[in-house]
Amino acid sequence: MERDLYLGIDVGGTNVKIGIVSNLGRLVAISSFKTKIPRTIDSLCEEIYTESLKLLEKENLTLANIKSVGCGLPGVINSKLGTIVLSSNLKFRDANFRDPLEKLFYKKVVVSNDANCAALGEQRFGSAKNYTDVVFITIGTGIGSGFILKNKLYEGFGGAGAEAGHMSIDYNGLECTCGNKGCWEQYASGSALIKQTKLALEKNPNSLIGYISKKVGKISARTAFEAAKYGDATANKVIEKYIDYLVVGLYNLVNIFHPQIFILGGGISNEGARLINTVNEKLNNKIVKSHMLPKVVVKKAALENQAGVIGAAALVMDEYQK
Amino acid sequence: MERDLYLGIDVGGTNVKIGIVSNLGRLVAISSFKTKIPRTIDSLCEEIYTESLKLLEKENLTLANIKSVGCGLPGVINSKLGTIVLSSNLKFRDANFRDPLEKLFYKKVVVSNDANCAALGEQRFGSAKNYTDVVFITIGTGIGSGFILKNKLYEGFGGAGAEAGHMSIDYNGLECTCGNKGCWEQYASGSALIKQTKLALEKNPNSLIGYISKKVGKISARTAFEAAKYGDATANKVIEKYIDYLVVGLYNLVNIFHPQIFILGGGISNEGARLINTVNEKLNNKIVKSHMLPKVVVKKAALENQAGVIGAAALVMDEYQK
Repeated sequence: MERDLYLGIDVGGTNVKIGIVSNLGRLVAISSFKTKIPRTIDSLCEEIYTESLKLLEKENLTLANIKSVGCGLPGVINSKLGTIVLSSNLKFRDANFRDPLEKLFYKKVVVSNDANCAALGEQRFGSAKNYTDVVFITIGTGIGSGFILKNKLYEGFGGAGAEAGHMSIDYNGLECTCGNKGCWEQYASGSALIKQTKLALEKNPNSLIGYISKKVGKISARTAFEAAKYGDATANKVIEKYIDYLVVGLYNLVNIFHPQIFILGGGISNEGARLINTVNEKLNNKIVKSHMLPKVVVKKAALENQAGVIGAAALVMDEYQK
Repeated sequence: MERDLYLGIDVGGTNVKIGIVSNLGRLVAISSFKTKIPRTIDSLCEEIYTESLKLLEKENLTLANIKSVGCGLPGVINSKLGTIVLSSNLKFRDANFRDPLEKLFYKKVVVSNDANCAALGEQRFGSAKNYTDVVFITIGTGIGSGFILKNKLYEGFGGAGAEAGHMSIDYNGLECTCGNKGCWEQYASGSALIKQTKLALEKNPNSLIGYISKKVGKISARTAFEAAKYGDATANKVIEKYIDYLVVGLYNLVNIFHPQIFILGGGISNEGARLINTVNEKLNNKIVKSHMLPKVVVKKAALENQAGVIGAAALVMDEYQK
């Protein structure tokens, strides 16, 4: 039954989104404003507060209709202390973000990492509904991750965990910006796929990849998928190899967590059946081959752009306060 | 205060150990018998029962003095259902092990994977006491692991998780018996170290490794550590490289869990300062270099051969029933 309303705030490096979300995960209304970094935490929190009031007013609501406020932030977030340990996007370090929001809203506020929020949103209201052990992977410039274990968000001690994109799948492999070698995101992120597609085109200049990228004006993470739809052999090879990289990391996470389900989010997850079905098949082939593990479900994220605000609101819903 | 007694059973492929363990983790008495595989589950459970009665009698105790019974088993164990999903050591598959024990003892019984029990033992009564987020790694023929997250054992959905030894650190690397490539245990287990030591001796026949191994009659996981104590350059290189492999996997687990502490168990952990200090330094250098993560403690396991029975008993102690 729909009975309570929450505010879900999704603070990104470029935009801040504010959502009014019901206890059933319905997005009642949404607005956004430019983050305008660098700025002080107090000024950012004040703009979140005034923009929230505006959004509520537009919906003929007031703060009295809101139970509590959840907030997703990019970076290493200590949700227990309410602090941003480090956020390169927001340029904050060791700064409390919860307390100023609590003072302004005069309500309970919970903060967490944005990928963790998205994971929670998918598990509560999206593709992983009714699953208790969920690994959420978001594929974009890098690879973000969020883990729901035994029905609860696992953020790592001090909030510094759940960085599966920086798990090394080749101890002697590609250099990563983090200083480590062979990080999964160097092979299986959207940026990695773009690099792999460019390299394949250089080696096979007659591939349809060239024609499509010229028409669109650039090579994106979608280009190889597009070309593959017309049976282009080079594009097919790029995608098969890319999916292999993706599966290496997912299978590592099977060996560690053995989740019930993987949820794939981010731009590439929109490539639909080709991606999801192949990942499903290749991953479960590996699992069955090892003769010891039950199969794992792989699904596309359902909440898409709304995962951030809905997930942030889910942070403060009753079930997660226990 | 010492008030309750529990039975901790550690079923291995070769021996079954039975311990009487107090609520403070004190091992009151211990006995063991040969596992004698293959045999039926009923006959194995009956021998566990009769040997337990004998041990109690020897200590002037009876079953009335025992609160409940915990049991560690090798393989994939579903502790919720009380079943052995698969155990190659015991040659059981999809078989309930808890119910026959409960019928015999007429007491609450909890079963779990043996490495998980050892992890729990270390967290409750060993080196990781007072830590809530613990990754336990046992280094032997393979690499076993156990995770305590937010003060609770995490066994993976259906008990099939916590197989960190099969996380790939080189997607195109050494073949593993599990069918996957580049599994961590192919690089950082005791068996892997023996292979690395042998290879180094072949290439450097004048190394002290040759002298020591001839004297002892074989190359073991300790040989390189022994030779390194006398400043042997080849042995030093072997160990540094081996520790690098170990750290690759540990750092992956930092990126996933960011635990407070790693506990290293198994034979190699007895190499003491050289191993533990170097792992500590190399791991935390990586963590600090990435500029985003708090340091992690690395300690040697404390309970050694008793971890199995003490950890099995810990499964049924009050705090873990919540």
